[in-house]
Amino acid sequence: MFSGAQISLYPMADDFVGIILGALSALDVHRKHLRIETDDVSTLIVGPPDKLFPAMRDLFVAASETGTHCVLSAAVSRGCPGEPDDPICDPVGGSVPDQPLQTRIAAAVAAVKAAPLSGQQVACQFSLYPLGADRHMDEIYGCIEFLKASGVFDRPKNFCTKLRGDAGPVFAALTEALTRFGPVDGHVALDVTVSANSPTRI
Amino acid sequence: MFSGAQISLYPMADDFVGIILGALSALDVHRKHLRIETDDVSTLIVGPPDKLFPAMRDLFVAASETGTHCVLSAAVSRGCPGEPDDPICDPVGGSVPDQPLQTRIAAAVAAVKAAPLSGQQVACQFSLYPLGADRHMDEIYGCIEFLKASGVFDRPKNFCTKLRGDAGPVFAALTEALTRFGPVDGHVALDVTVSANSPTRI
Repeated sequence: MFSGAQISLYPMADDFVGIILGALSALDVHRKHLRIETDDVSTLIVGPPDKLFPAMRDLFVAASETGTHCVLSAAVSRGCPGEPDDPICDPVGGSVPDQPLQTRIAAAVAAVKAAPLSGQQVACQFSLYPLGADRHMDEIYGCIEFLKASGVFDRPKNFCTKLRGDAGPVFAALTEALTRFGPVDGHVALDVTVSANSPTRI
Repeated sequence: MFSGAQISLYPMADDFVGIILGALSALDVHRKHLRIETDDVSTLIVGPPDKLFPAMRDLFVAASETGTHCVLSAAVSRGCPGEPDDPICDPVGGSVPDQPLQTRIAAAVAAVKAAPLSGQQVACQFSLYPLGADRHMDEIYGCIEFLKASGVFDRPKNFCTKLRGDAGPVFAALTEALTRFGPVDGHVALDVTVSANSPTRI
């Protein structure tokens, strides 16, 4: 298994460099689980699928606490057959069992309800792409059913689902979507945008 | 067929609202092809798959001409079986024929080489997700082969491919990737980030 994400943080401010650099220390507690490489468009984090979103959450909350309108965008992937297996990607919480869809939905809802709050409100939208699967829409609809019961569902949108709430349960919902939906050892991608402090509230 | 994108424009400046509003008139020539709806996280554009990236190109170039570090992020989709057919999504240039992979690669390269220049240099990275297909990696590898010959290939990255060059051919390459790879009438998603005026050049 290989898993990771290309992530980018966008503070809408003249001092965007300072805000990004100021938030990076929030990643320190996660570095032991991750390999991190940065270029001019994004930062690659490679690590266990259940450790990717906690790292993104802490980075994003640290940047958003400045009060600046910030966005985090990420292309997340697990199980891509074009990438080599890497031991750093072994799930820290153990492999997710291959269970019926309804069992997975219930477990995902419970995990989000148990997530600690961060104090930072966010809006979020994401798309889940279970690849190489004949019945990919079943997994997508199952994930949407989970999200509607998660407590952070905002509304459906074309091509994605919108969440809203505290960054703790919102990022927990993203972990559940990535790890519990799509084939257990299959190729699943997830495209996400998280926003805080937007002057527009719709 | 239903096709469209959730797009967001991020100017890294205190005056991000002014820069976004100032760039919107660049969409005027495209409005006849598109249905547009905005909320606090993204703007939905629904329209023909071959008209989505030209609209994004003109919006992004208009914002980037301010000299501000700007990023455009989009989740693009065609053929999602969960969306209703919509006549506004009929390809303006006609349907792309169902041809062998090597024929499609050659046609895609020719289209990018013929694209007019915009005068704006950009970096770009994107992922292509052909869904519901058993052999999705063949289409992805075919698309990468096209990109390597397109004149705007920068380098491979984990989970995505990075392009660099003038916005004209770069956005043309995105149109070719979306419309020529993956099953002709199938479900294909594309996740893209385009950046201009970054203070970091790697």
